[in-house]
Amino acid sequence: MAQDVSAGLRLGSILPVTAGVNPAGHLTLGGCDTVELAAEYGTPLYVFDDETLRAQCRAFTTSFGHRHPSTMVAYAAKALAGLAVLRLVAEEGMGLDVVSGGELAVALAAGFPPERIHLHGNNKAPSELREALDAGIGRIVVDNLDELALLDRIAGECGVTASILLRLSPGVDPHTHHKITTGILDTKFGISIQTGDAETAVIQALASPHLELLGFHCHIGSQIFEKEAYVETVEVMLGFAARMRDRHGYTLQEFSPGGGFAVQYVAGAPPPDPDVYAELVVDALHAACEAHGLPLPKLFVEPGRSIVARAGVALYTVGSHKEIPGVRTYVSVDGGMADNIRPAIYDARYEALIAGRAAAEPGDIVTVAGKYCESGDILIRDIALAEPRAGDILAIPASGAYCVPMASNYNAALRPAIVFVKDGAARLVRRRETYEDLLRTELG
Amino acid sequence: MAQDVSAGLRLGSILPVTAGVNPAGHLTLGGCDTVELAAEYGTPLYVFDDETLRAQCRAFTTSFGHRHPSTMVAYAAKALAGLAVLRLVAEEGMGLDVVSGGELAVALAAGFPPERIHLHGNNKAPSELREALDAGIGRIVVDNLDELALLDRIAGECGVTASILLRLSPGVDPHTHHKITTGILDTKFGISIQTGDAETAVIQALASPHLELLGFHCHIGSQIFEKEAYVETVEVMLGFAARMRDRHGYTLQEFSPGGGFAVQYVAGAPPPDPDVYAELVVDALHAACEAHGLPLPKLFVEPGRSIVARAGVALYTVGSHKEIPGVRTYVSVDGGMADNIRPAIYDARYEALIAGRAAAEPGDIVTVAGKYCESGDILIRDIALAEPRAGDILAIPASGAYCVPMASNYNAALRPAIVFVKDGAARLVRRRETYEDLLRTELG
Repeated sequence: MAQDVSAGLRLGSILPVTAGVNPAGHLTLGGCDTVELAAEYGTPLYVFDDETLRAQCRAFTTSFGHRHPSTMVAYAAKALAGLAVLRLVAEEGMGLDVVSGGELAVALAAGFPPERIHLHGNNKAPSELREALDAGIGRIVVDNLDELALLDRIAGECGVTASILLRLSPGVDPHTHHKITTGILDTKFGISIQTGDAETAVIQALASPHLELLGFHCHIGSQIFEKEAYVETVEVMLGFAARMRDRHGYTLQEFSPGGGFAVQYVAGAPPPDPDVYAELVVDALHAACEAHGLPLPKLFVEPGRSIVARAGVALYTVGSHKEIPGVRTYVSVDGGMADNIRPAIYDARYEALIAGRAAAEPGDIVTVAGKYCESGDILIRDIALAEPRAGDILAIPASGAYCVPMASNYNAALRPAIVFVKDGAARLVRRRETYEDLLRTELG
Repeated sequence: MAQDVSAGLRLGSILPVTAGVNPAGHLTLGGCDTVELAAEYGTPLYVFDDETLRAQCRAFTTSFGHRHPSTMVAYAAKALAGLAVLRLVAEEGMGLDVVSGGELAVALAAGFPPERIHLHGNNKAPSELREALDAGIGRIVVDNLDELALLDRIAGECGVTASILLRLSPGVDPHTHHKITTGILDTKFGISIQTGDAETAVIQALASPHLELLGFHCHIGSQIFEKEAYVETVEVMLGFAARMRDRHGYTLQEFSPGGGFAVQYVAGAPPPDPDVYAELVVDALHAACEAHGLPLPKLFVEPGRSIVARAGVALYTVGSHKEIPGVRTYVSVDGGMADNIRPAIYDARYEALIAGRAAAEPGDIVTVAGKYCESGDILIRDIALAEPRAGDILAIPASGAYCVPMASNYNAALRPAIVFVKDGAARLVRRRETYEDLLRTELG
């Protein structure tokens, strides 16, 4: 991991590793003054720190790789898909999980090596399966029996053999938010082990000349702090693999426990380190293989949020200020639920600081409201800030994952620009939308 | 109101007024077969019925206009802003509420008469205020004291007089969902009457040579079924107007109680008719004016959702089917939270039917899941459908408001196409996005 110069800074543990404060008192990221970035590129602006991105990639590749050399860490593109981040991930030697034809198209446009791309999704369109086969991607992760039959037919029509994993539902509850729990029995994802469907899928996949069954995949949810859930999952999955060997002579070659590694959004809630996850997962895998007499499979792990969340900081300009004595003080910014809908959907909690007074002690408690015409458009309720004034730049750390990808044009908002920062230089990797963009698909 | 041929149909009260079933058993809208529309334009597809849109416009203009001739019904563009719908609204003689520079740009591109446009928003950028003044729009609805000072300065710089309303916070609780409650004391919107800020704003506005204070505006929330809340609001607002006359010699010329009129999403929950709202609001306004000896002001009412919700039907193609015995059956469709995030944010509830068997009795209970990689991507939990099978077209009524405007490219989803239907003809008014569109702002 790169030297974490942010350690002495308030909120240092959730800001990018290069975060600092310059002599003007401004927050710096990747050696760039965030107040100057806001002036140059406008706000809302999403700033990504190259060094933090690479440090997170390496934290996963190293911690898993040195314990289990046959590991591919595949970045889950849904957390943030763009040419710049995908090229960085490719440079770091990682694989890529995509969940749609659109993400596959972006990955191919970024020059991502197709053989390192896996296609996921609970309801892939026939066209998406064809696109995946045409591109020669590494694996298609088959979600259900209907899709298994569909892919069998399409692969046959295309005259190719599809390399597949089966997405299984292990029936493990990781006790995270119900909207991001995916591995329990009552889920739209995967083929249930408990109901017998998973075994049916194995039999059908083995019988097909157009499908090569390489292994099993699962994913138990997102923001998993309860790390023992991974151990239970690995045991359930490998136990199933052992039964498939015993009953159908099938030897597991590849295995994925998915992603879901937690990240830190607020002070005082540090998640387990990648190394802790790696030790747990690999130890559980090795123990289960030994217990069942199975050879060690190739391992795929799929961090998404944990690669990009900390690297990204959202910058907003403070606008109106509204004090309702005895009730609440609202400070409005020039973004909100159109660029970050997570507080509205998940009651997600963020920290913030005034970028121009990054070392100042926070003072009064305020509520940071967005600019969109909806009461639910509140970015942060009840946070201490250092006397926010109109024109100040507000920085929200840990904004790298699931903000820009879920951004909308609600209220005809223009979706924000993204800059990457490194060694004192900023690079615009995504331009802000314009009014013309709002009309691009309109035919009138 | 147009003849409601949908009356005999199951879900007729929430489908467009032209909904019917043709001899093939297919749902028709505006004389168009929805199964054929899906085949021609692809899915997800949002179909809007021209006749229902116009009927809703006329229901409001007529019911308010015949009781209070000096009324302008202003469509709230945030519910759905596009060239086609804005042109239709303009043709119906209505006004328009916009909440951003982006919505203003779309309205101007649609040729909407600027003098009938009002600009709202709790945190308007200086650039947005300038754009509004440059375009010569009808009113700027000033949300707070900071903005009042800002607009005063900008109007002075531009050498114009800005015609304004003050957005006031009346402190009335309409008992709707907390995320869409806007008129209580603890709100980011408006200038509080209770705290004295509203009176300060009146004094400042009257003192400015660059501002012409025409009246007061408020908005108590969305999906207001508790119609008495409007009466209370009118009384509070007119009482304030009377005090401003008594103390500062100010005569109210224009008044708006906002919008928030409820629409029907599910069977068995009919909202009040526009005529009921009109009677309540106008009676309360006339009574309050008489009680306070105030002249009758011009009235602005601002329906958004209630103009477009019923007119829009979303069409999806059914994909995979997953039965978990004793637990739940999931039916996946080719859209979901990327095109309709309302179930994820508001726990919004919808009805649905199989478009190809529109007259069939619904059978087993299923859960309609979206295709996006998130457990929260469930469109409808526990709904009876007529044996959905892969390839069927699923129609979700009451999808006209706040779906497409809040749509994202999450999971690199392509945002859907929109067709308008009328007299058996369909017109593509917004094309589906393409993979190229996903890369449009990417600079790599």
